Amino acid sequence: MIVTVTLNAAIDKTYHLPALAAGQVSRVDRVYAEPGGKGINVARVVALQGVPVLATGFAGGSNGDFIERGLTRQGIVHDFVKIEGESRICLNIMDQDGVSTELLEPGPTIAGQEMEAMRQKLALLAARAKVVAFSGSLPAGVPKSFYAELIEIAQRQGAVVFLDTSGEALLRGAEAKPYFIKPNEDEVAQWLGHSIEDENALKQGLLRLNETGIPCISVSMGAQGSLAAFHGVCYRVHAPKVEAVNAVGCGDAYVAGMAIGTAQGLPVEECLRLATASGTANALTARAGYVEPEDVKRLLGEVVVERIG
Amino acid sequence: MIVTVTLNAAIDKTYHLPALAAGQVSRVDRVYAEPGGKGINVARVVALQGVPVLATGFAGGSNGDFIERGLTRQGIVHDFVKIEGESRICLNIMDQDGVSTELLEPGPTIAGQEMEAMRQKLALLAARAKVVAFSGSLPAGVPKSFYAELIEIAQRQGAVVFLDTSGEALLRGAEAKPYFIKPNEDEVAQWLGHSIEDENALKQGLLRLNETGIPCISVSMGAQGSLAAFHGVCYRVHAPKVEAVNAVGCGDAYVAGMAIGTAQGLPVEECLRLATASGTANALTARAGYVEPEDVKRLLGEVVVERIG
Repeated sequence: MIVTVTLNAAIDKTYHLPALAAGQVSRVDRVYAEPGGKGINVARVVALQGVPVLATGFAGGSNGDFIERGLTRQGIVHDFVKIEGESRICLNIMDQDGVSTELLEPGPTIAGQEMEAMRQKLALLAARAKVVAFSGSLPAGVPKSFYAELIEIAQRQGAVVFLDTSGEALLRGAEAKPYFIKPNEDEVAQWLGHSIEDENALKQGLLRLNETGIPCISVSMGAQGSLAAFHGVCYRVHAPKVEAVNAVGCGDAYVAGMAIGTAQGLPVEECLRLATASGTANALTARAGYVEPEDVKRLLGEVVVERIG
Repeated sequence: MIVTVTLNAAIDKTYHLPALAAGQVSRVDRVYAEPGGKGINVARVVALQGVPVLATGFAGGSNGDFIERGLTRQGIVHDFVKIEGESRICLNIMDQDGVSTELLEPGPTIAGQEMEAMRQKLALLAARAKVVAFSGSLPAGVPKSFYAELIEIAQRQGAVVFLDTSGEALLRGAEAKPYFIKPNEDEVAQWLGHSIEDENALKQGLLRLNETGIPCISVSMGAQGSLAAFHGVCYRVHAPKVEAVNAVGCGDAYVAGMAIGTAQGLPVEECLRLATASGTANALTARAGYVEPEDVKRLLGEVVVERIG
């Protein structure tokens, strides 16, 4: 089983309206809402490919209820820690010209006993999981070291741990040596303490990160694919060329593919292939964190994984 | 007891943020959310003055749960018809310069059996009520005649009926001859079939509406107070001068005051006084549909009700 952890779960809500008129009253034509947050997107892409997955994290208030009911409706098994606060809404206001304005609510503040409930739930879930994937930002109230703590709990239970977050949460979480991380180029540069001039410098950087004890690292290069390092070996992954509909959620779909491959014990080249096919398939749909399984299967054969030493 | 009916209940939500930047991602600093919709505002202002009130209407989905839990927390008795659809959010985006951008969700579509449940619930509640106040717009799916139907049900149970809505819903609802309505000047003009030149023409108009079988009519003149007609007698109500903080919800507070006075069997002058003091007190607070009871008491003595024939 794959477990995904979303500490800052959300309702992803889209308003469609003719125009966003500041200072005025507008009626929204159409509302679309579904469970969101990066870990939930990962869980959805895993579930869509028919692989057992469970989504956990913090959920609270009526928005938390919406998230849980939505997951149930989408056929995604879930087991969240119920919190006092109200889960957040991430609102995307889309006008008729396709201009998107996003408003992100701050989200709830997590209490001490809620963190403790998370530690306990995670220990139980990780004992049954092949892969535990932590995704997204840390909610208010939790210490910056919270990912490191949870990663250690999951690792003690024998799970392989993924961490897909950014900034301080990534730097501190990486201290617990997760199996897989997905930093961006800026984060790698910050780690190394110097800027990255070209693909070769990035490759050398990833290999140095391997040496710190993180065995699998991937840096996305958008539509061009990714650069990955695995136990001191580098791979240039070339993504199939597609007409992208919506690139939001491609990173989460990539993580989903990596998690499926890793849970199934596939060689790293096959994991990278599955990750890239899933990420690319996500770009073919308007929804974030969503793939058509047929797209993934078709694209699998078009991904080129090149060993670059 | 006073019963308020909100067929299109909402969560009134306010986002505070530095600036609304179209086409960009913004983090919301602060979120404020409470049960809203005009009838719920009326219920809150009645409850704040210590008078027994019950709020009903349609509520559904996780937003409906939020509305019901919020009412409970605010000490307002409620008994809503649970619907399949999701109750709407009325979002007010407030930037640091005080510019307010409102986005109104379309709200749920009411099914046939949900309307039938409302008719039955209303019959039971109206039998225990002195005043039943219907407020706000009609949700999707209900016929334009729905207010008229519900008004007749409430009247058959012996309740005095208020209707505070606008446009077609008001015109059609008024056919059931509610006891009290609160049209605006344009709606009176539309009714009469000619424009209204001055206060005297408005007065003549209200008297004609009295003759059609609606005994009590009030037209707001904003901070200047209101003009009212009651069984063929007109009143000019002068509101106390105050430094308004937020005028939103003043009309609902006015209805609340009228409902309290009417339920207590006070003479119409006293009802108008209580309505105006409640409406004015609402303007003194930042919240819509909210009064400090001490403000209402103090302002009561400052309202001047002048009989103008």
